[in-house]
Amino acid sequence: MLENIRISKDFLPKYYSISQKIIDRIRAGELPPGAKIPSENEIIKIYNVSNTTARKVLLEIEKGGWISRIKGRGSFVNTSNIVNRSATKVLSFTKNMRQAGLVPSTRLLDIKTIRKGMSITISGRNYNIREPVCKITRLRIADEIPMMIENRYISLKFCLGIENENLEDSLYEIYMNKYNLQITQIDQSLESIIIPEELNKHFQTDKIVPGFKVQGVTFCGKELILEIEESIYRGDRYKFTIQAVP
Amino acid sequence: MLENIRISKDFLPKYYSISQKIIDRIRAGELPPGAKIPSENEIIKIYNVSNTTARKVLLEIEKGGWISRIKGRGSFVNTSNIVNRSATKVLSFTKNMRQAGLVPSTRLLDIKTIRKGMSITISGRNYNIREPVCKITRLRIADEIPMMIENRYISLKFCLGIENENLEDSLYEIYMNKYNLQITQIDQSLESIIIPEELNKHFQTDKIVPGFKVQGVTFCGKELILEIEESIYRGDRYKFTIQAVP
Repeated sequence: MLENIRISKDFLPKYYSISQKIIDRIRAGELPPGAKIPSENEIIKIYNVSNTTARKVLLEIEKGGWISRIKGRGSFVNTSNIVNRSATKVLSFTKNMRQAGLVPSTRLLDIKTIRKGMSITISGRNYNIREPVCKITRLRIADEIPMMIENRYISLKFCLGIENENLEDSLYEIYMNKYNLQITQIDQSLESIIIPEELNKHFQTDKIVPGFKVQGVTFCGKELILEIEESIYRGDRYKFTIQAVP
Repeated sequence: MLENIRISKDFLPKYYSISQKIIDRIRAGELPPGAKIPSENEIIKIYNVSNTTARKVLLEIEKGGWISRIKGRGSFVNTSNIVNRSATKVLSFTKNMRQAGLVPSTRLLDIKTIRKGMSITISGRNYNIREPVCKITRLRIADEIPMMIENRYISLKFCLGIENENLEDSLYEIYMNKYNLQITQIDQSLESIIIPEELNKHFQTDKIVPGFKVQGVTFCGKELILEIEESIYRGDRYKFTIQAVP
């Protein structure tokens, strides 16, 4: 069988693998914000590559928003790097950002009461919230950088009058403290998308940015749907971490 | 506080939300492969929108590869739709595809033995496999459609001689049946990326396609690293599903 193997080159080009290695070091905190990263000449020596490849390495890292190049001085790690988010643990945005050492804030973009139900399909299963539903659209920010936009469809059966709360606070805390509700489970799906151009103004970008579309159903007891979520996370700022078991 | 709310329009344009609703119906199997989806005129009536919006709805669905438009006859759901993959359950590609009703196959692109270790960082933690490592690059296919490309770095300490096995079979089954190894856990991270152009030939596309970059560490016992994985999944073919708990 081995005879038939087509020995191809690595499926990723050299400049790309090298750039990923350096980005991994930034993510791991080995190269903290403000640190100087290897210069073109250093990359040539360390990785034994041509100057064209070395130039492409730096371009690729810059394209991802990881570094800024200062003429005559070198390339420096930007202060805003990627945030790890556990996908298997219920965790508020606020706590997640604080864990990452960032200062979270929230901007309420829209709120309305919808006189019909809301439904989504996750992994082929359909989930419904009956009316009335309060729909909240918020921009979530960390250290002044817009990280995600979320639509939350909240069951008013469980949270009557929620529109009078400060909706720039953590909703999880409002559920717990004002309505005495415990979240028991969130079923969610993650899609990889190109962020729709219409959102670029919120995300303050004019580039093609990858993103996550997250759809979720939050339960406050068996079969009790508290809210449905449809959010878009910036793919260049987020990494989801997951533990799988047999 | 409510006085300060800026009542903006929904953050997604109408044509986009309608297209997502129809795509959700395709994904849920309500509109199975071969089914005719609503025409421009029907969309105008059902959703009470202009013909410009209706046209953009169909374009958006077509752009995602969900439908084919046949002149004078209408738009029909393509046979290859999205696959749900549980991110929290260890599941082989082969079984996952069969569950989705697709016929899986694998093409071995490259194999080599590496005389140095391999390491990755997941959520700030560094994982290492000592040498020697067998690196396998494979293209995973379902119903003739390339779904993902994977690099697997396998510890030869646990799997001596694995290069002599049929590496187009399920590696999980080889681990179990030939080496008597049980997978105990996989720690992984999911990133949303634009698929690098260099991979377009494998994925048989020339468009900008979103994708998932999955990095994972597979354990065959406490602290025993069996393999490290770095894969790229097509974002237009995959949806990861996850259950989060407090």
